[in-house]
Amino acid sequence: MSQLRIALAQVNPTVGDLAGNSATVVEWTRKGAEQGAHLVVFPEMALTGYPVEDLALRKSFGGASRQAIEGLARDLDAAGLGDVAAFVGYLDLDEVGPRNAVAVLHGGAVVARQFKHHLPNYGVFDERRIFKSGRALEIVRVRGLEIGMVICEDIWQEGGPVSALGQAGVDLVVSPNASPYERAKDDQRLALVARRAAEAGAPLVYVNQVGGQDDLVFDGDSMVVDTGGALLTRAPQFVEHLTVLDLDLPGGAERVDRDTVDEFTVRRVVLSDVPVPAYEPLPAPGIAEPLPDVEEVWSALVTGLRDYARKNGFRSVVLGLSGGIDSAVVAALSADALGADAVHGVSMPSVYSSDHSKSDAADLAERIGLHYQVQEIKPMVATFVEQLGLTGLAEENVQARCRGMTLMGLSNQHGHLVLATGNKTELAVGYSTIYGDAVGGFAPIKDVPKTLVWDLARWRNAEAEKRGEIPPIPESSITKPPSAELRPDQKDSDSLPDYALLDAVLEDYVEGDSGYEDLVAAGFEPPVIDKVLQLVDRAEYKRRQYPPGTKISFKAFGRDRRLPITNAWREGRPATG
Amino acid sequence: MSQLRIALAQVNPTVGDLAGNSATVVEWTRKGAEQGAHLVVFPEMALTGYPVEDLALRKSFGGASRQAIEGLARDLDAAGLGDVAAFVGYLDLDEVGPRNAVAVLHGGAVVARQFKHHLPNYGVFDERRIFKSGRALEIVRVRGLEIGMVICEDIWQEGGPVSALGQAGVDLVVSPNASPYERAKDDQRLALVARRAAEAGAPLVYVNQVGGQDDLVFDGDSMVVDTGGALLTRAPQFVEHLTVLDLDLPGGAERVDRDTVDEFTVRRVVLSDVPVPAYEPLPAPGIAEPLPDVEEVWSALVTGLRDYARKNGFRSVVLGLSGGIDSAVVAALSADALGADAVHGVSMPSVYSSDHSKSDAADLAERIGLHYQVQEIKPMVATFVEQLGLTGLAEENVQARCRGMTLMGLSNQHGHLVLATGNKTELAVGYSTIYGDAVGGFAPIKDVPKTLVWDLARWRNAEAEKRGEIPPIPESSITKPPSAELRPDQKDSDSLPDYALLDAVLEDYVEGDSGYEDLVAAGFEPPVIDKVLQLVDRAEYKRRQYPPGTKISFKAFGRDRRLPITNAWREGRPATG
Repeated sequence: MSQLRIALAQVNPTVGDLAGNSATVVEWTRKGAEQGAHLVVFPEMALTGYPVEDLALRKSFGGASRQAIEGLARDLDAAGLGDVAAFVGYLDLDEVGPRNAVAVLHGGAVVARQFKHHLPNYGVFDERRIFKSGRALEIVRVRGLEIGMVICEDIWQEGGPVSALGQAGVDLVVSPNASPYERAKDDQRLALVARRAAEAGAPLVYVNQVGGQDDLVFDGDSMVVDTGGALLTRAPQFVEHLTVLDLDLPGGAERVDRDTVDEFTVRRVVLSDVPVPAYEPLPAPGIAEPLPDVEEVWSALVTGLRDYARKNGFRSVVLGLSGGIDSAVVAALSADALGADAVHGVSMPSVYSSDHSKSDAADLAERIGLHYQVQEIKPMVATFVEQLGLTGLAEENVQARCRGMTLMGLSNQHGHLVLATGNKTELAVGYSTIYGDAVGGFAPIKDVPKTLVWDLARWRNAEAEKRGEIPPIPESSITKPPSAELRPDQKDSDSLPDYALLDAVLEDYVEGDSGYEDLVAAGFEPPVIDKVLQLVDRAEYKRRQYPPGTKISFKAFGRDRRLPITNAWREGRPATG
Repeated sequence: MSQLRIALAQVNPTVGDLAGNSATVVEWTRKGAEQGAHLVVFPEMALTGYPVEDLALRKSFGGASRQAIEGLARDLDAAGLGDVAAFVGYLDLDEVGPRNAVAVLHGGAVVARQFKHHLPNYGVFDERRIFKSGRALEIVRVRGLEIGMVICEDIWQEGGPVSALGQAGVDLVVSPNASPYERAKDDQRLALVARRAAEAGAPLVYVNQVGGQDDLVFDGDSMVVDTGGALLTRAPQFVEHLTVLDLDLPGGAERVDRDTVDEFTVRRVVLSDVPVPAYEPLPAPGIAEPLPDVEEVWSALVTGLRDYARKNGFRSVVLGLSGGIDSAVVAALSADALGADAVHGVSMPSVYSSDHSKSDAADLAERIGLHYQVQEIKPMVATFVEQLGLTGLAEENVQARCRGMTLMGLSNQHGHLVLATGNKTELAVGYSTIYGDAVGGFAPIKDVPKTLVWDLARWRNAEAEKRGEIPPIPESSITKPPSAELRPDQKDSDSLPDYALLDAVLEDYVEGDSGYEDLVAAGFEPPVIDKVLQLVDRAEYKRRQYPPGTKISFKAFGRDRRLPITNAWREGRPATG
């Protein structure tokens, strides 16, 4: 048996910030070394951030990333960390093209480069657009142990590099990842990682990034499983975290003496041949439980909003407070993400606003302790309506747009990030006013269905009570019937099905890509199906101009679901005969 | 020698409209048959329209397309057209997955299905996301002649199906396409088609669709070249067109008696074995000259705007008329696309508007004969500025946003499509107000650099003079220095480099993906590079919320250039050492 101390560096890089991310790698490698780690593993593309999208196609950026990884190897050495083997994801650029790569840094140099093999090109991923696939496996010998590398999608697909490593013979597999958060994805990860460890015939070290990047958020959930699939450690979600773990490895993996296995060429690189002398292991690190569903979503939304604001240089946000549930939840999220002092709420009552709208908004502001102001929109609305002779829907929209303009005015004047407070259900059925309530730089709950918005509110209030704090969200914002209040006595239920039903149809149609017959088979009534699908299909143009917001579902609007605006296809009962 | 009469059906389908597109195929097959054609070739995915984007992933749509192609075969037969071999692009769905396919319809049935092999996954294309690749070649024998099929990208890539068809032995190759317009692309097409004909050892029939689909426009430019690469016919651009051509084919292509060639399996299908009895050929159809550059761009923009409006059910458009060149060009385009009576221009002067702004706008309206109204924004602006205490940039933006709200109000009240009038240069450097002048359902010139906007204006005026009509665009809109007129005596040149220089830098940075060193090598001054690149990088969030508009360049903003908003990468001189 050979011992090895491994550090999992679950960090939060920023896309494009080569200098800042390099400094992070040095800092966390030092932390690992201080705890005696022999190797430190960083996430996929930790040097460049992920996803870099079309930046991968810019030669200057690819060249800079390649220079930066060499520089980082020297920096680590200069910092006295050259003995540690650091596994760092980066963008490589060679004569074949850009690569999603992991470098092994040791002794001041890049001693091995592993290229990603399976390039995901579905959902939010466009990796076949921007990367060339790798067909080689680099196996590094560290302290006499053979270590192979596989990158993210390489463990999500059957066959390929993991199986080839198993055949080639390795003592350990490390896997840097940038795997975006989705509800319930963590439940799949452990089983997957365990299966791959068995396939490789070696323990597997899974390291995922944390943090937000535009519409994606990464939850971490880094872990190590042994060859038998047993979980040895698991990191908490949504926080930067260093896990240090001692492994007892049998060593002496049967090394196949071939240059190729399956479709892969194999290259072995020796960093250090002498095993670590026997030492006293550290206490085993913890096994964090994945968060319960609603708390996990809340954490994802807080992380996504915090990082969008922070990484884009905003210190404060402004949002409209209607007294309703959506703006209340966004306000509470904002306070959790940035602190109540960074949150500016604006109540913008119109002639149709109810008394409870105003009092609930004020109550919310007081509960959270955010900055609060009231801006009546009556005078603005009157100017437009009278001058342009607007009636009906045109008049309703002017109210929403005067609110949008007010928020943008305050943003321009004071530098706040404007938050759009629409939820996924509204976005799906087009129940929002473009350039009105859809205004914003970021839309924190755009991927949260209305029914889940209520769950989040209840969970957050209960959490406050548990902590002995004031629940942030007024009870009446949770319990009252939703209304846009753009005309007298308007209720959402006047023009939309009940939200529980609506969300059920949307889950099947949007996330499940169900057709008409599937929906009928699922038990929905044809008139409801017709109504909902028509609303969804007609609102595509609005979604295109909606701000980005944190993805939490399998299929978020945006890069996950790319549909034409001009689209005459309508789901319907197939014509008979 | 064997004779064969071929019809090239350069049609304009609508995405998703299976019934309407089927009717188009029947109608155009009839037109071909009336002229005695033995085969009629339609564009790529003519049945479904192109691109269908993620609709390809919806099983109900794939199933409906497969049903519709079978139904179309029966419809053709029922219409007495079963003798004609119709080559029709459609979406296939089999157990492997969705396919970009061409069906041969004959005698009331689908007699062959060719699947696309090379799936483009760059630029605006996401075909590896949505289609599975084909590895088979279906060769149909029509009147004793062997006819192979290759779809769009299959002729843009070296090797693959064309070369395999050449080895297998064919008398003719037909190629259905949906190849989006880009400036100067037509110059490449002929050379490419000629090269592939040589590779196949047979004449090549190239049929491309026409019309607009969201941000893409297709120019047609269908053609036939003989085995030696000589151009036999070429269809005019941007119009639906039926070309009927008689070919003398040597016939008796050396048929390789193998089931596989290279990586492809080969299947031969016999439709009819007896050659056509000798007949008197029709006069050779014309060889249309591709349009000159500026006229071609104008036609692309008219087509893109016309089809976006028509296919989305809009009969009229509304836009702000500032007296400047951008809105003047968009107004003239709109009149050409939809007729002057469908165009509603609104002059929205503020306190900073010059006299010439108002008179030039009125002059433009009169020249074109569009509907014209003046809406002073002073009262609206004053309400916001005073109530919210706005100054500086916040005040400037309110002016632009009151204009946007005015246009949206008129749109909601009267059903017009709102047009955003920004050009590519503005969009690149963020010289526009989000929710202000960026408001719109469509942005006709969003991919047109400012310098080309002037060229378009001059060309359109000269064209009017040639036709003995009143030039639509006031001379002073072309010659005066551009200004946003959001503060006293403001000129674009106060904050931006000269447009000729700016467009040159942008062409290299945006279209060419040049890095800092490339730009220096191209002769630009570092302070100009720094300034322009910073503006471009910081404006990404605005571009995300901008309306769609017709792509005319190699790299349009949108699907062509996918960059993160949160992005710390800044081009700059590489650090030395």
